[in-house]
Amino acid sequence: MKNQLGFIPNSILYYQKALTHKSVSLKNKEGLVVSNERLEFLGDSILDSIISDYLFNQYKRKDEGFLTQMRSKLVNRKSLNEIAGSLKLHKYIKVNNISIENNNVLGNAFEALIGAIYLDKGYNFTRLFLINRVIIKYYDFNFLETVDTNFKSRLLEYTQKHKKAILFETREESSTERGKQMFIATVLIDSNTICEANGSSKKEAEQNAAKIALRKFEIT
Amino acid sequence: MKNQLGFIPNSILYYQKALTHKSVSLKNKEGLVVSNERLEFLGDSILDSIISDYLFNQYKRKDEGFLTQMRSKLVNRKSLNEIAGSLKLHKYIKVNNISIENNNVLGNAFEALIGAIYLDKGYNFTRLFLINRVIIKYYDFNFLETVDTNFKSRLLEYTQKHKKAILFETREESSTERGKQMFIATVLIDSNTICEANGSSKKEAEQNAAKIALRKFEIT
Repeated sequence: MKNQLGFIPNSILYYQKALTHKSVSLKNKEGLVVSNERLEFLGDSILDSIISDYLFNQYKRKDEGFLTQMRSKLVNRKSLNEIAGSLKLHKYIKVNNISIENNNVLGNAFEALIGAIYLDKGYNFTRLFLINRVIIKYYDFNFLETVDTNFKSRLLEYTQKHKKAILFETREESSTERGKQMFIATVLIDSNTICEANGSSKKEAEQNAAKIALRKFEIT
Repeated sequence: MKNQLGFIPNSILYYQKALTHKSVSLKNKEGLVVSNERLEFLGDSILDSIISDYLFNQYKRKDEGFLTQMRSKLVNRKSLNEIAGSLKLHKYIKVNNISIENNNVLGNAFEALIGAIYLDKGYNFTRLFLINRVIIKYYDFNFLETVDTNFKSRLLEYTQKHKKAILFETREESSTERGKQMFIATVLIDSNTICEANGSSKKEAEQNAAKIALRKFEIT
């Protein structure tokens, strides 16, 4: 593992935990379950920060919409599973009676590993590790910039081609006493309600609704 | 502003930008718009990391589900607007022809401010600033632990009380070529489809769908 990561851990315990899937459910002396789920919670947000920081600096002339879209192209289940594979985490991860290939076991372990590095070595070390060992090596930024993840525009193209009338009805959820603000987008095609989806912004709700609609027409 | 934050900035430019709403749309020498939206993108994820780290350490015996729920109680539009208010950001923020009280101008500026501190002073400084000047001062953890944000259980209670049959049908979205995995939950009450919502996990999709359903019955 040491050679794989390219550095020597201070405390190996963090890394052992990061590579223990909940199916193993080891318990420590205090009877607490030792698995990587808490580390995954932590690592997920650290990863997001470091990627955001990288994109912020890399694309100084791009707006936050572009940055948000790029981040979701970089950080998603598929890419995390692949990065975990390229770091050969499947050789080290402990599971019990489940397939490592399924259920995002690998990607989740990668997130947990980021949590472990953060706890063991701190934020700045984790940042440099991610930039040098993952971001620069793994991502093809020229390609990612051109990938079209605009589901709404794809749905509009589809309905235009098939001469159907499309309408997005998007409303804000009223009076959320607590919790994040929520928008709900409904897709109507030829006056029939196709689907509804939510999001933290009008745009996100519409994108999510368009994604579901595209799937219904089997054109994703 | 210096007294308000309790430290002396290295570069005041970051903070000026963080406190400039897009409605002002200043342009710099290169013709680029100077507003806080890019900093908000950055600060949002840094804030999430620091809160996640704090909760991870504060609740060593709690699972990731509890940590995720607590994080959403701490970081939401309402609390960010209130924190911004308590830091008196309304005295410093520049807007043009819009009300500071609406549109989450304050909360967004607070996120941008976190981005500014991070760029100006680094992660560890930002972490200590947040813990000492915001987290410890502002949040009532005993109260937040007890707040019920379980929309599904509230919907189940409602249907039981009114003797209605409820069914959650939740499916995973197949073959997402890229992008995050998505679950779609449908709420059926007495066999009628009430609403549909998505989420990055089965649980989240069901919570979102339950939230929409509760709103439809006007019991949120």
